[in-house]
Amino acid sequence: MTKLNVAMIGYGFMGRTHSNAWRQVGRFFDTPLEPELAVVCGRDADGAQQAAGKLGFHAHATSWEEVVTSPGIDVVDICTPGDSHAPIAIAAAEAGKVVFCEKPLANSVGEAKQMLDAVVKAGVLHMICHNYRRAPAVMLAKRLIEAGRIGVIRHYRGTYLQDWIVDPEFPRVWRLEKARAGSGALGDIASHSLDLARFLVGEISEVSGLLETFVKERPLEDGSGTGVVDVDDAALALVRFENAAIGSLEGSRFCPGRKNYNRFEINGATGSIAFDLERMNELELYVEEGPDSGFRTILATDEAHPYVAAWWPPGHILGYEHTFIHTVHDLIAAVHADALPTPNFEDGLRNQQVLDAIERSGETRGWESV
Amino acid sequence: MTKLNVAMIGYGFMGRTHSNAWRQVGRFFDTPLEPELAVVCGRDADGAQQAAGKLGFHAHATSWEEVVTSPGIDVVDICTPGDSHAPIAIAAAEAGKVVFCEKPLANSVGEAKQMLDAVVKAGVLHMICHNYRRAPAVMLAKRLIEAGRIGVIRHYRGTYLQDWIVDPEFPRVWRLEKARAGSGALGDIASHSLDLARFLVGEISEVSGLLETFVKERPLEDGSGTGVVDVDDAALALVRFENAAIGSLEGSRFCPGRKNYNRFEINGATGSIAFDLERMNELELYVEEGPDSGFRTILATDEAHPYVAAWWPPGHILGYEHTFIHTVHDLIAAVHADALPTPNFEDGLRNQQVLDAIERSGETRGWESV
Amino acid sequence: MTKLNVAMIGYGFMGRTHSNAWRQVGRFFDTPLEPELAVVCGRDADGAQQAAGKLGFHAHATSWEEVVTSPGIDVVDICTPGDSHAPIAIAAAEAGKVVFCEKPLANSVGEAKQMLDAVVKAGVLHMICHNYRRAPAVMLAKRLIEAGRIGVIRHYRGTYLQDWIVDPEFPRVWRLEKARAGSGALGDIASHSLDLARFLVGEISEVSGLLETFVKERPLEDGSGTGVVDVDDAALALVRFENAAIGSLEGSRFCPGRKNYNRFEINGATGSIAFDLERMNELELYVEEGPDSGFRTILATDEAHPYVAAWWPPGHILGYEHTFIHTVHDLIAAVHADALPTPNFEDGLRNQQVLDAIERSGETRGWESV
Amino acid sequence: MTKLNVAMIGYGFMGRTHSNAWRQVGRFFDTPLEPELAVVCGRDADGAQQAAGKLGFHAHATSWEEVVTSPGIDVVDICTPGDSHAPIAIAAAEAGKVVFCEKPLANSVGEAKQMLDAVVKAGVLHMICHNYRRAPAVMLAKRLIEAGRIGVIRHYRGTYLQDWIVDPEFPRVWRLEKARAGSGALGDIASHSLDLARFLVGEISEVSGLLETFVKERPLEDGSGTGVVDVDDAALALVRFENAAIGSLEGSRFCPGRKNYNRFEINGATGSIAFDLERMNELELYVEEGPDSGFRTILATDEAHPYVAAWWPPGHILGYEHTFIHTVHDLIAAVHADALPTPNFEDGLRNQQVLDAIERSGETRGWESV
Repeated sequence: MTKLNVAMIGYGFMGRTHSNAWRQVGRFFDTPLEPELAVVCGRDADGAQQAAGKLGFHAHATSWEEVVTSPGIDVVDICTPGDSHAPIAIAAAEAGKVVFCEKPLANSVGEAKQMLDAVVKAGVLHMICHNYRRAPAVMLAKRLIEAGRIGVIRHYRGTYLQDWIVDPEFPRVWRLEKARAGSGALGDIASHSLDLARFLVGEISEVSGLLETFVKERPLEDGSGTGVVDVDDAALALVRFENAAIGSLEGSRFCPGRKNYNRFEINGATGSIAFDLERMNELELYVEEGPDSGFRTILATDEAHPYVAAWWPPGHILGYEHTFIHTVHDLIAAVHADALPTPNFEDGLRNQQVLDAIERSGETRGWESV
Repeated sequence: MTKLNVAMIGYGFMGRTHSNAWRQVGRFFDTPLEPELAVVCGRDADGAQQAAGKLGFHAHATSWEEVVTSPGIDVVDICTPGDSHAPIAIAAAEAGKVVFCEKPLANSVGEAKQMLDAVVKAGVLHMICHNYRRAPAVMLAKRLIEAGRIGVIRHYRGTYLQDWIVDPEFPRVWRLEKARAGSGALGDIASHSLDLARFLVGEISEVSGLLETFVKERPLEDGSGTGVVDVDDAALALVRFENAAIGSLEGSRFCPGRKNYNRFEINGATGSIAFDLERMNELELYVEEGPDSGFRTILATDEAHPYVAAWWPPGHILGYEHTFIHTVHDLIAAVHADALPTPNFEDGLRNQQVLDAIERSGETRGWESV
Repeated sequence: MTKLNVAMIGYGFMGRTHSNAWRQVGRFFDTPLEPELAVVCGRDADGAQQAAGKLGFHAHATSWEEVVTSPGIDVVDICTPGDSHAPIAIAAAEAGKVVFCEKPLANSVGEAKQMLDAVVKAGVLHMICHNYRRAPAVMLAKRLIEAGRIGVIRHYRGTYLQDWIVDPEFPRVWRLEKARAGSGALGDIASHSLDLARFLVGEISEVSGLLETFVKERPLEDGSGTGVVDVDDAALALVRFENAAIGSLEGSRFCPGRKNYNRFEINGATGSIAFDLERMNELELYVEEGPDSGFRTILATDEAHPYVAAWWPPGHILGYEHTFIHTVHDLIAAVHADALPTPNFEDGLRNQQVLDAIERSGETRGWESV
Repeated sequence: MTKLNVAMIGYGFMGRTHSNAWRQVGRFFDTPLEPELAVVCGRDADGAQQAAGKLGFHAHATSWEEVVTSPGIDVVDICTPGDSHAPIAIAAAEAGKVVFCEKPLANSVGEAKQMLDAVVKAGVLHMICHNYRRAPAVMLAKRLIEAGRIGVIRHYRGTYLQDWIVDPEFPRVWRLEKARAGSGALGDIASHSLDLARFLVGEISEVSGLLETFVKERPLEDGSGTGVVDVDDAALALVRFENAAIGSLEGSRFCPGRKNYNRFEINGATGSIAFDLERMNELELYVEEGPDSGFRTILATDEAHPYVAAWWPPGHILGYEHTFIHTVHDLIAAVHADALPTPNFEDGLRNQQVLDAIERSGETRGWESV
């Protein structure tokens, strides 16, 4: 089988999920190309070397500039913090590589536009890793909506709640710095709710946003004092979709007990759908069938459900990391077919534009068009 | 025991819940006054007579003007649609009666102010029937919050979802007419989410609202054609509380499968609380206690829980109508103590002001102060 | 309307539920006879007098022998502990009264037989109060099974779990004395699981039982020392039904956190049904419809559901006490039609025979036929 | 790092889970030995070759006799149907290999004894793969019980329900043949409930069993007619533990909607624990703390929870296959320490003895000692 040589830039949390996906996909799915974990790249040589060993890469490197232009590389997989996505992606595109980028695409609309321009100009394939689209239950939701099971959509309600910084003594990590992360809960988690809204409901036309930082100063990680938190701890928005549906989005890291509560509910004219990432193998479906109707819990582990046939018998659940394997699976198929996968940089830009509108609305205190 | 003579105006849905409360309260609680169902009043003599028999009133009447000034009456209980609350309440107050009024207090802020002025001027006791405050689980939530179990509150998330008009062929009943009902989902159900927000979190300072009418014309009930729906089918708002908490409110009658889904979640600095009226005997509580913490389901049916000692052993659940019995119980105690009960017309006015701000915001497309 | 004069013997926990049912039934349902709470009877004159006032009876008495033969009485409602059911019921039958008796029918099969003989010989109507049959969700389960929605039944799994005597310092109340209560968890709560099994699945042919007493001695209520617990704390049984279904029954008062957990699951050839009394307004239904099937939660509060039309709109839940109101409703209809209601003393005897077989099996350590 | 060369016999469903475990364990955990997927063995050369490629083995073979005596092999991992476990395990033991065997250990007590004798005589390490012990939530349950959080255990209630053969036209696969599978639901799934009972509660002393075959004849897989089903479709048992706890076990493949419903509930003197494999990342815990107690849902995804630190942040759930990775992780550690892992062949034998007692009891219709 033809090899697909992958260079991964960054080896933190996302580097672990992506590399696992590349390693595992061929063990369970029949892929038309065989991914090779060619090289992992990081600024720290020792760290990169250890990551290569642990994650199964053939080689390691410290200069992403060299890696992304290396002739042996087919795909550049970007797993760094948001502030370096643009330069890496643009260089990779210019070098003719397939570019696979973690979300959010960039820290600003301007960067995102440049990135999209670069991949379009270079004529390379591109994909953004909004992995939750590819939880089987979410893809099943998409299928049910497209089949008309819940009718025309009226409501979307998306909340992504966590609690990891609720303690004011939790340090000011990079995700709490605007210069590194771009934004706080908005870009990190509400962006998932947003991407799912666009995937399942449609494009958002305008927003009214509210951003709040509850703890405005935190200890620095190195113990040298305190630092300012200049990103949002929580972000909420009312939204209007182009198709006349209405909805709300929320991301917050200040919700005790909510660990990874990426939940949405969609109400259509004849039914409803709900999902919660903490129970990601389940999809709640209500279809109006008279008085004995009720929300049913579909255990999305049947071989008829998206991606499941490659795995285990019904009721044997999948985990978080599988969403990345499915994403990589579809990316490989797209590369083989030379077809643009989704979500791609256009989605990344569009998402960024909505996030930007929410931020603007938080300042103007009025509705903002996307 | 001293009697408390009650005149009830209106005998529809709310008339049934209120009369049941007056009949039942003394059978389970020890009340300092004994309520007597003196008279029920309605415009239709036959209907009023039948209601008197069915609901257990000694007499019936057709003129509320006469009833509210009748010397034998102690309490006037107003169960009519919102457009008649003001004249009845004002007349009752002027006649020196205790005034007990269904929510919403009025169809406009102006009316609500007049009503509050009237009861204050007359020096009579007054109460608005926001019955859900007195579900044992909700009162337990209040108790836990006041005891500091979840710390300073950061988030309130209130949704009240139903589905009874999702069919576009459902007729244009009075609740869909602005002249009768004042507003749609906003005043009917979002107002409950709002009242619970004020009860459990605090006063709301400003709002950003979104109102939508999905089905703008419906068949008339008499079959004579169609009529315009001039109230909202769904109402959403972002809110800021005076105490720096933030939140959202939503009421919609277009959510298939949600029958009476009055749900709220509150996140504090050290814990969270959630409630769903469809499971009104349960309170979900999360208290941060290390890695083995988790949302617990308190079955609020213990004799130590509010109001429960009067009822059944643990695990024997209460129903919707009990919330009215508890409300009436507290009203009787207040009358006996000559003390102002809560929620009262001040709450009714405050609620109306928030609803009004949401409506205004829906038009101005900006944040509105309450 | 013709009156139906009710004499209630006993005014404890069950006296409160029964009297409430008699008082409330006509306020919500149209009944063909109008129940009158004629007299309440108890051994203690003061207690009976207070009960009469509190529960709304016209009179009180201390001699059940006189009450049950009083010419003005139509129905004798027996709410005493099990050891007095037989003499009261037999006397009431001989006096030609309708006999309505709390469960369990008696403390032994012999007594139960005598009671059935007495009502049959006297030609009077009789009913046993297994109120949970008349939770709307349970009656809906019956309807769905009869409509063939889950096919031929293979499995019944019934557990009734509580935790009120888990503390070894909890006193030795009458329910823990064999002479008063007949048995422990077996007759008190497992009997409900059993009755529901017979109602929903069919007759039980043989059983293998296990009974256990975890705390064999407890403080006496009067503080005068300790007393022996000679009833079971927990009772389990495997059962075979006449129709070839198999199942299990369990009652235990030693399950921390289970307050009133009367749960059953039924598996048929094409579907499944589950119910939990702590969420008594809900019925879980699974019907095989391909990969997108799932257990649905029916909120059994629709006007199309059994008994619900008399109450509130969808989603406004009912409570524990409503099951008694529905039972009394059906008893009144049966009396008016001069038709034998169900469950009646035949069911009471049959239930007793199964309980007896379980106790015998616990001793013989082998399967026992019913 | 020292290599640990693994030979896997069989490459069906269990072969896929085991090989994945061997491949993945070192990517996430720091293991003291490095497993090498040396060879996979199957009767069909083509199949074995394909399996080697797909699952990542260096080589393939068709003779397990040769493989298990091959000097380069350290561990023999047995993933074949139960009827071949004994000869393979015994030969592997005699060849001095570590023996890792899928459950059930054997198809009879006699075989299981021979296997245990063989490994003891040979002085080799041995383990049986009851993988569900190593779901983090189950291991957390163990930890909580050992810490005394729920007190002395009184009740164990284990059910393992599936629905994959509810259709009578489903063919007579090998799992429905006694000669191949040993038993039906009993050995396949009730054995998991049993193993968890022994792990969490203690040894079982006696049982009363009930076995049933609902569909006694099914189409053959090759279309050549029908074949007899000579194993149980469902198996139930009442059990007594040596420590005075009581319980029940059930396995059934005839429960529509239950896909992989391996559920248990344990009631102790001061608390309760419940688990459901379909939501395997959650543990339900009740600890008596007064009226505001309630069952809490612990999302067992915190780094403080067993095995979790190697994976993802809180709320990012694990799947079915992770239980095997954890099992292999502990096996490797045991091999490195030259210490006997658990569960091992002693557990396998003990489990087999209980299953055997249940089968005997089903025939004798009385309690059977283990």
